Amino acid sequence: KQYRIAVIPGDGIGKEVMPEGLRVLEAAAKKHGVAVHFDHFDFSSWDYYEKHGQMMPDDWKEKIGKHDAIFFGAVGWPAKIPDHVSLWGSLIKFRREFDQYVNLRPVRLMPGVPSPLANRKPGDIDFWVVRENTEGEYSSVGGRMFPDTDREFVTQQTVMTRTGVDRILKFAFELAQSRPKKHLTSATKSNGISITMPYWDERVEAMAKKFPGVKWDKYHIDILTANFVLHPDWFDVVVGSNLFGDILSDLGPACTGTIGIAPSGNINPEGDFPSVFEPVHGSAPDIAGQGIANPIGMIWSGAMMLEHLGEKEAGKSIVEAIERTLAERTLRTKDLGGNADTTACGKAVADMVD
Amino acid sequence: KQYRIAVIPGDGIGKEVMPEGLRVLEAAAKKHGVAVHFDHFDFSSWDYYEKHGQMMPDDWKEKIGKHDAIFFGAVGWPAKIPDHVSLWGSLIKFRREFDQYVNLRPVRLMPGVPSPLANRKPGDIDFWVVRENTEGEYSSVGGRMFPDTDREFVTQQTVMTRTGVDRILKFAFELAQSRPKKHLTSATKSNGISITMPYWDERVEAMAKKFPGVKWDKYHIDILTANFVLHPDWFDVVVGSNLFGDILSDLGPACTGTIGIAPSGNINPEGDFPSVFEPVHGSAPDIAGQGIANPIGMIWSGAMMLEHLGEKEAGKSIVEAIERTLAERTLRTKDLGGNADTTACGKAVADMVD
Ligand SMILES: CC(C)[C@H](C(=O)O)[C@@H](O)C(=O)O
Ligand SMILES: CC(C)[C@H](C(=O)O)[C@@H](O)C(=O)O
Repeated sequence: KQYRIAVIPGDGIGKEVMPEGLRVLEAAAKKHGVAVHFDHFDFSSWDYYEKHGQMMPDDWKEKIGKHDAIFFGAVGWPAKIPDHVSLWGSLIKFRREFDQYVNLRPVRLMPGVPSPLANRKPGDIDFWVVRENTEGEYSSVGGRMFPDTDREFVTQQTVMTRTGVDRILKFAFELAQSRPKKHLTSATKSNGISITMPYWDERVEAMAKKFPGVKWDKYHIDILTANFVLHPDWFDVVVGSNLFGDILSDLGPACTGTIGIAPSGNINPEGDFPSVFEPVHGSAPDIAGQGIANPIGMIWSGAMMLEHLGEKEAGKSIVEAIERTLAERTLRTKDLGGNADTTACGKAVADMVD
Repeated sequence: KQYRIAVIPGDGIGKEVMPEGLRVLEAAAKKHGVAVHFDHFDFSSWDYYEKHGQMMPDDWKEKIGKHDAIFFGAVGWPAKIPDHVSLWGSLIKFRREFDQYVNLRPVRLMPGVPSPLANRKPGDIDFWVVRENTEGEYSSVGGRMFPDTDREFVTQQTVMTRTGVDRILKFAFELAQSRPKKHLTSATKSNGISITMPYWDERVEAMAKKFPGVKWDKYHIDILTANFVLHPDWFDVVVGSNLFGDILSDLGPACTGTIGIAPSGNINPEGDFPSVFEPVHGSAPDIAGQGIANPIGMIWSGAMMLEHLGEKEAGKSIVEAIERTLAERTLRTKDLGGNADTTACGKAVADMVD
């Protein structure tokens, strides 16, 4: 079978890291006899917006909805387009309309990447953050009353549905069950957020009954962020709402040294729609155009994509090539104390793939 | 003038650290000629709840509403009373009904306390988290529909009022203006939480105009938590909503080694009602009764209380005594690698006060 991948570089450094992501994907596909076809799209970018006055063509769903996966760079350029236009007009649209209800991100301390935490070595930190990706705190329900007066107020609802909560918890418990430690941690704040969060806890308890082999615990989000710093070795699979998952999946990679190398998947597990794989970092306008961006987040996202497609060996070969590359100072980009540029780093990983 | 302080030890280790907090307060008051009178209350505790079926007497406001401040230990014992009864029946009631709209917590790396962050020394990390303490995400507006069916859902509103947002921002900007760096950072998430957070940003911009001497910036909460770990030296005053402030004021102290020594003030700046000073740690049922709890969070809260009352010198003398105590390994409690028990550590600080 040949996989059809929609390629969307997007904005800023998205355009610079994408060629390296593709280079390494091609190398791994070749070595492992995987057939991949790439279709390139220029939408979901400032350039496209400037020409067309919208982020994507009206028929974007037809254009990319039948692909096996979407390989995505970065989107957003706040100085040129407001976030609610650029992000809600592309990235968040994908998540909602392709029902990518799982946002999955590894937190893993890699060789060669200095951790900001004292005395942590590769192997000490190795867990997954599973984030609900379609509802929760990112609702569009709410509004403003008494504008421009002293009585002005705004409200916004957090919405949690049984369907939405149960399916993300099921995914997280299944992931925990598949791992050696079989340990799940739930992020809550039921002592302060007194309606939605107790509901989340209630559904976690119900789901846990179906997975008797999984040990589970829960922490309020405040102390959980503290424990990411103090005890990152406590975690195996951490599940959270849209907002809590968002926070934990930036904090986790920071604890392992940099969000510059972190990958993510926006996954529709049923396969009714394509999933999106993208680096955690954004478009980074401040360093765009200099050729110095770290391509590892993009490359690692490619590995996650291959694994999602069922090509475990090819995916694994990329992750191992990343580890070997990062271990060599000269092959790392500047942000990690090396002196390679984006292309040199990408080529190094491609060469290491076997 | 004699200050009248309401003393509420509460639950668990609250009862063990309170005597040390009082011991040090008395020592500092004596040295600095400050007259303090303590009134002791047993409510806001499991013991009281067991006897009376409620957390506080009906006339709690008359009992403590006229004091100059409230010195509070800890409350909550989830195994015995649900949080929504214990916390919402005391701590959160104080915040709301005494209009303590500022939650103020220092983040400061102290000598002798090993930081989980690599290569950070005392002096490198020294900032304040200013948290909105009465509204925002901790609302009681919301509910559940279609219970026990597949269509079940819950909603909860975040509520931000012009009054509520502006007054916390004003407090934070004033605090920033009073500090050498004059730098304020606002926590937002306006790219994902699309109604309340853009409003927060809008009010920050409006308030900033009134404080031209203050440099300010804003970060989305996800990358902000990452920056607490990667660049704690970037911050001076950080202001956030009820939830974001809660998260940042646990994460910050964790980055400086432990939440066991962090103090906090729940402040009504106008002085219409008493403010509450309490350690950040909770009642810690797991170590209660062993005499090993670290009393520094309680003692430091006493220093914040004295400063709030206008007794700057006496407050400062306590903070300095804490620094001298922590610098000696043998005077620290077990959680900080020492071998002092709660009382020995408290006595050491009291002796150091000058
Ligand atoms: C106990 C809990 C409700 C409280 C909060 O979230 O406000 C606590 O975490 C705090 O920070 O004082
Ligand atoms: C860009 C932003 C809306 C997005 C989010 O918060 O979901 C980003 O932070 C992410 O984590 O993918």
